[in-house]
Amino acid sequence: MVEMRRPIPVAEAVRLVMEHAAPLGTEMVDLEQAYGRVLAEPIIAKHDVPPFDRSPYDGFAIRSLDSEGASGENRVPFSVIGEIGAGYVGDKPIGEKEAYRIMTGAQIPENADAVVMLEQTVETDGGFTLRKPFEAGENISYKGEDAREGELLIEAGSLIHPGTVALLATFGYAEVKVAKRPVAGILSTGTELLDVADELEPGKIRNSNGPMIRAQLKRMGIDYKSYGMAVDDLDACTSIVEKAIAETDLLITTGGVSVGDYDYLPAIYERLGAKVLFNKVAMRPGSVTTVAVLGNKYLFGLSGNPSACFTGFELFTRPAILAMMGGTAPYMPRMTAKLGEDFTKPNPFTRFIRATWTFTEGRIEAVPAGFNKSNAVSSIARGNCLIVLPSGTRGYAEGDEVDILLVGSEQGISEWTL
Amino acid sequence: MVEMRRPIPVAEAVRLVMEHAAPLGTEMVDLEQAYGRVLAEPIIAKHDVPPFDRSPYDGFAIRSLDSEGASGENRVPFSVIGEIGAGYVGDKPIGEKEAYRIMTGAQIPENADAVVMLEQTVETDGGFTLRKPFEAGENISYKGEDAREGELLIEAGSLIHPGTVALLATFGYAEVKVAKRPVAGILSTGTELLDVADELEPGKIRNSNGPMIRAQLKRMGIDYKSYGMAVDDLDACTSIVEKAIAETDLLITTGGVSVGDYDYLPAIYERLGAKVLFNKVAMRPGSVTTVAVLGNKYLFGLSGNPSACFTGFELFTRPAILAMMGGTAPYMPRMTAKLGEDFTKPNPFTRFIRATWTFTEGRIEAVPAGFNKSNAVSSIARGNCLIVLPSGTRGYAEGDEVDILLVGSEQGISEWTL
Repeated sequence: MVEMRRPIPVAEAVRLVMEHAAPLGTEMVDLEQAYGRVLAEPIIAKHDVPPFDRSPYDGFAIRSLDSEGASGENRVPFSVIGEIGAGYVGDKPIGEKEAYRIMTGAQIPENADAVVMLEQTVETDGGFTLRKPFEAGENISYKGEDAREGELLIEAGSLIHPGTVALLATFGYAEVKVAKRPVAGILSTGTELLDVADELEPGKIRNSNGPMIRAQLKRMGIDYKSYGMAVDDLDACTSIVEKAIAETDLLITTGGVSVGDYDYLPAIYERLGAKVLFNKVAMRPGSVTTVAVLGNKYLFGLSGNPSACFTGFELFTRPAILAMMGGTAPYMPRMTAKLGEDFTKPNPFTRFIRATWTFTEGRIEAVPAGFNKSNAVSSIARGNCLIVLPSGTRGYAEGDEVDILLVGSEQGISEWTL
Repeated sequence: MVEMRRPIPVAEAVRLVMEHAAPLGTEMVDLEQAYGRVLAEPIIAKHDVPPFDRSPYDGFAIRSLDSEGASGENRVPFSVIGEIGAGYVGDKPIGEKEAYRIMTGAQIPENADAVVMLEQTVETDGGFTLRKPFEAGENISYKGEDAREGELLIEAGSLIHPGTVALLATFGYAEVKVAKRPVAGILSTGTELLDVADELEPGKIRNSNGPMIRAQLKRMGIDYKSYGMAVDDLDACTSIVEKAIAETDLLITTGGVSVGDYDYLPAIYERLGAKVLFNKVAMRPGSVTTVAVLGNKYLFGLSGNPSACFTGFELFTRPAILAMMGGTAPYMPRMTAKLGEDFTKPNPFTRFIRATWTFTEGRIEAVPAGFNKSNAVSSIARGNCLIVLPSGTRGYAEGDEVDILLVGSEQGISEWTL
């Protein structure tokens, strides 16, 4: 009567999910729309950067050989033959003891090979004098010193962040080839669910998982379709899941994955002929998390418990979505921290604890964000990381070193290492 | 002829910027639009969570006293008088040796005080037997154990992330009071600038700072108006700045803040009667970063050099925008890392180096992201943090401990500590 499920380790669950990621293809977007997308082509320098020798300061462009022998006693005079603002070019080469007034970012004029900063000069009528010699190349930003034409600068699969946008703009990428984004479907199941605007009723709670997942998707810049809330009715649920999966690239459901009489998702997966990757993970919260694939689409059966639902999304759904886009750093960044308070429970399964990390007195400390049963909602609203306590461990004491995963970090890491 | 500016420490510059933040007021938004906004009211539990005693498992709700004396030799029989799915309530209290079949999340029926998990029972005709006694309260999630009605759960000034959305949904916040978001103006100055779609011309470069800053604002969910690119003409520039500041809540300009003959921003600030908070910061890159206020509006005069512009935005503009919204954690999270390679240059000013942090062999390591002159654009496109080397220090060796600030982290910290 009670179905026995075989729990698999978290790392295996992650691996199974990731190996089923089906790429969605690419599209061109305007550079202005590119932030947050995944690059589908490498950024290769289309020209040298800087594209020409230029002045890093406001000053005077000279021939260094003309400054030879300059000293306090032997100030060398230069005559200024013109001015080069940024964006302009000198109209003639400079000759002996000639100089151009030059601005930051302006192109070095022909024959010049050094820039004298304003404060190193004394102004004269029609020019200036110098009290020290300059070397060839002094105060010059050379063509190509930042990047060489043809150089591979950023790999495909990288997230486009503001710095990437700057680089794309530099090379004139008015349009960028990016990965298509999946559209996610969201369906909350459970007869106990009320809408956020509803008054509480006996035995019922408001649906918090749906809004939360929509926010988790928004954080990733992923569009979604909401299929509302389904009561615990197998036929009705099956129809909605069928419709949703036809209209979207992946379907996220919450609830209905336990072993109770009204937990229909396993039955629905079977009816639809979906391949269940796993239906039990050796983790808390969220051991009932179930992931299936139907054709090239994912069916994420997340737990109905808010903490478990949150964690299941960040552990499995988020990296899977990034993998569908060819993202090469889909996992939450990991580091270690000192546990900020005792955690006495044993951990038969790997435990993920919502927590806050701070840098305190020279060390990184992680403190559980509060009440930590899987049905806790108040703790999800706090914290910026997940503490990970491996399965098979007993209690932990304050000061013990633990692994943490950073939540809400724009850039991830490429390997799952826990 | 060369204006002498007094450099101020970074911490003082941050403080000056932050103390001029003018709040913008609040507005109500739908919960679905709340992600990424700053809470303008605390979240106070509107009811207990859970709102009723409920079952954390699928099983049977019993009176614990009826299980007294149960053992393998003396199995105690119960008769099942009904079933309570999640969202339903039992229609009668249970009596002696009676039980309800109960589902995860369902309300505990009257008189019951323990839940027996399915796997702890043996089914009988019309009921089940038990082989161990249960204590009062066993397997019950008590009303209010997660949060108590009236309890302050999240402070005003917090960023609304997905977990916050879940909490708001739980309490029926269909609308949320959030801080109004400023609208930023962006103006890139410099005659050398080409548009991203333009072909390169001698002496010119494409405008990368404008697109980058727009992406930095998008990352924060902040709307903006672009005022394009202004050539280095004082009157024309002044008009654009005047128009922009009238139409927006803060104006970000790039370029024009050096001491060159075409660096007009200082002159424009003077013409407009803006109060200059500082025009020189003891930092590299970006020492010329200038911030002024006009009435309750900021004028951020960022350097035209891409790295300096990027850093100036993250150091000053981003926290200022968050402060305008009452955000209580406006700064980049800080931690320490081992320097991954030698950095031999001295640091007369505090140096910010774009870098990548990784967790490698049990320690956090930060490696500079490449070429690090202030005009470097290729390094901005890499990396996830800024290494901070304090002013007055000489070179650093691989393995030295350095401070790093995390870039692109959803949640920040409340104090500037460098």
